[in-house]
Amino acid sequence: MPETKTKKSEDFNQWYNEIVELADLCDKRYPIKGMNIWRPYGWKLMGNVDNLIRAEMNATDHDEVCFPLLIPESFFKKEEEHIEGFGAEVYWITHAGHNQLEERWLLRPTSETAMYSIFSLWIRSHTDLPLKVYQIVNTFRYETKQTRAFIRVREIHFFEAHTCHRDFEDAEAQVAQDQQIADRLLHKLCLPYIFCRRPEWDKFAGAHYTISIDVLMPSNRTLQVGSIHQYRDNFSKPYEITYETEDGSHEHCHQTTYGMSERLLGAIVGVHADNKGLVLPPDVAPIQAVIIPIIFKGKEDLVNTAAQDLYNNLKSAGIRTHLDSRDINPGNKYYAWELKGVPLRIEIGPRDVASNHVVVVPRDTGEKHNIPIPEAPQHITNELGFLAQRLYEKASQHLKDNYHQAATIEQAKTLSGIIELPWCGNDTCALEIEEILEGNTLGEPLEEKSCNDVCPVCNKPATRWMRYAKSY
Amino acid sequence: MPETKTKKSEDFNQWYNEIVELADLCDKRYPIKGMNIWRPYGWKLMGNVDNLIRAEMNATDHDEVCFPLLIPESFFKKEEEHIEGFGAEVYWITHAGHNQLEERWLLRPTSETAMYSIFSLWIRSHTDLPLKVYQIVNTFRYETKQTRAFIRVREIHFFEAHTCHRDFEDAEAQVAQDQQIADRLLHKLCLPYIFCRRPEWDKFAGAHYTISIDVLMPSNRTLQVGSIHQYRDNFSKPYEITYETEDGSHEHCHQTTYGMSERLLGAIVGVHADNKGLVLPPDVAPIQAVIIPIIFKGKEDLVNTAAQDLYNNLKSAGIRTHLDSRDINPGNKYYAWELKGVPLRIEIGPRDVASNHVVVVPRDTGEKHNIPIPEAPQHITNELGFLAQRLYEKASQHLKDNYHQAATIEQAKTLSGIIELPWCGNDTCALEIEEILEGNTLGEPLEEKSCNDVCPVCNKPATRWMRYAKSY
Repeated sequence: MPETKTKKSEDFNQWYNEIVELADLCDKRYPIKGMNIWRPYGWKLMGNVDNLIRAEMNATDHDEVCFPLLIPESFFKKEEEHIEGFGAEVYWITHAGHNQLEERWLLRPTSETAMYSIFSLWIRSHTDLPLKVYQIVNTFRYETKQTRAFIRVREIHFFEAHTCHRDFEDAEAQVAQDQQIADRLLHKLCLPYIFCRRPEWDKFAGAHYTISIDVLMPSNRTLQVGSIHQYRDNFSKPYEITYETEDGSHEHCHQTTYGMSERLLGAIVGVHADNKGLVLPPDVAPIQAVIIPIIFKGKEDLVNTAAQDLYNNLKSAGIRTHLDSRDINPGNKYYAWELKGVPLRIEIGPRDVASNHVVVVPRDTGEKHNIPIPEAPQHITNELGFLAQRLYEKASQHLKDNYHQAATIEQAKTLSGIIELPWCGNDTCALEIEEILEGNTLGEPLEEKSCNDVCPVCNKPATRWMRYAKSY
Repeated sequence: MPETKTKKSEDFNQWYNEIVELADLCDKRYPIKGMNIWRPYGWKLMGNVDNLIRAEMNATDHDEVCFPLLIPESFFKKEEEHIEGFGAEVYWITHAGHNQLEERWLLRPTSETAMYSIFSLWIRSHTDLPLKVYQIVNTFRYETKQTRAFIRVREIHFFEAHTCHRDFEDAEAQVAQDQQIADRLLHKLCLPYIFCRRPEWDKFAGAHYTISIDVLMPSNRTLQVGSIHQYRDNFSKPYEITYETEDGSHEHCHQTTYGMSERLLGAIVGVHADNKGLVLPPDVAPIQAVIIPIIFKGKEDLVNTAAQDLYNNLKSAGIRTHLDSRDINPGNKYYAWELKGVPLRIEIGPRDVASNHVVVVPRDTGEKHNIPIPEAPQHITNELGFLAQRLYEKASQHLKDNYHQAATIEQAKTLSGIIELPWCGNDTCALEIEEILEGNTLGEPLEEKSCNDVCPVCNKPATRWMRYAKSY
């Protein structure tokens, strides 16, 4: 399988489906649509992403918990906007064994309504704050749109952090910290991104405001891989999450959440892979370097011993290394590991051993070069860093090339990717632009960005920018 | 909180509930009975148990996967005995959003019926065998008996390995390997156990035979923490899992499963903890050693610096260490960490620094002794090993003291714990004994054990032993 049938540049969506299947990330033949089977390689890769998230959470004083999957209907119905937002997309359990339940339970689409009545028991005093917890679990949404592996599924591998604070300002500081976490994490995944403040009519159900984390896919559609929400006291009031202040009065907490999902994996596949297969960011690649001995008759021992020594050296330097000693043609091994996206291939033959060098082939460039065996761990570590940087820069260039400011709708219609247009602040104008561009309103930039123009719909003064794109 | 209200020796079950709550392992106030919230400390502890399982699985060539939670009713109904076994204890999803589903889905009680139709797609040829996969997931059983944290719950944290083999013998070899894995794992948890071949009338629904892994709790009731099943081709026939042999014919696979659950944690708590709190086996303790500086006025810097140095040394030796520098009374710290079951407490004061020693206090014995600071990592590692050995030996002694062979029912009635009686091979006799002893039939020993006696019920010749116990 040297190349995919469909080329990435010709039909991205079709190519994406092919790659996901060929690389054995998941199996979509399970009989419930949008509920896929994680195969070993895909699950390992997702696990490595989860581990990066855990490391970030631990470093920022979040505790990992695990709440029940099932939520009683009465818990779910405490926050009105939230029900409106999710009511149409939850799964209901009505029976247990042969009995009908007295109250229906739903599968969590997200865990606010499971957690917040319990938070009201956990939090008593200002000394209990901030409360910062997270969980990595499966969530469920009854998607009616077309499903797509990792991008639009019905059982979702999901990360959700939930925090409670003494006031709005402290919650704002958490929102700022979440942005830093997202920045570090996405950088490790070699994924440039944009933050947007989602428009009022499309924020998370119940939120005060929502910041989305969007990646631009090679199809020039954006993929929202995560979001950060400031809830203010919108949930703490119905769920009665209060605390006693230093002076004995009682206040409602202010809350935030930060969520990301397996869409991160969809972005990794979509942004970096090529027609030969996956190209994995070194920080999450299950195998970072694969050693392939090039065996000639009579030189087996020489090469195998050198390959094994190299493997041991790289392993003890903490590099995730695999030695492929299968008795098949090296060319077939190359194809197999290219498909799996292993960042570096190391070829070692008798002449290499003699000259104390090995050949390194980075997955992205395919450019062979020699490195000295004695300093291999340091060289390989460097090569992994260079590859990560190239992946990031290539994706950044694509984002830069497809990020436009336009003044008029006519101009916007000629562009592809993310388009910023002046905005008067009126919902109806943005919604009209959505329709004309056949896209979505992403939201406003977080940073101050002066605009001194007119709204391209109503011609009234526009002092803000609004972003639009076709989205997954 | 120096001691539990209820004493372990007086009312084990009540004491157990108290300890679970006081040590902050889980919160049982979630409004669905038997669905508990994993609190950070409990989840970390469970995660450490999971990591030991993962290490064993990886070392024995099992791949980790993750199958969907929901199972279509038609998949579930392919194996008849299995439905009979589980039909009364599954949760049914009937609606999605505002729509009724065409086919009902159930929450996995275990994953045979989710996996095996897919295995029939994955396995084509003898070269695809053995297939060895596992997953660590949440499963659901509608328990009608009284629930108890970790021991009898309705959302169960569950490990399940599933393997497919070319023939019965190869599956038997897997069953043997699973026993070795269980042995290594339970030893690390300092839990002596017994294997029993479950009686025909109480084996896993659909299995050819079932081996249970039972731990004897201090209440002298057994707790089944896991099981290993030989399925023969009982599932591969209805699910059509076949492979092409070397000579081109097609055969059904033989299958095994190996399951364990959060009951392992129930056993750790129940067997090792005391009236002061948890006592954790070092291999899974989230914190293996806690350093407590004993501060005297004017000596703060001296002690704090030495404590920090010691912390760094132990950390870099790979010992999970915590430095408790809170500004509270050392005695309160002692109580807090005793409750959490930290295996070793290290006290360091000005005199210790001066003499280049620290005081070590093992959680189980409470016996203080000095160790030299320069060799602390090696000493602490040894101490952890000694403590683990003591925990294991103490529990082994309890198992030995409460494991009896009896010849008559009259004699059996005077005994407590696990009781072996001669058995004629007739179900009705064993079931009658169950009733008289108000216990359960655990099953037969796996090892050959000669018996040349008469059945205590029917007086016919008995050549086998059968085990009975009161069980959770």
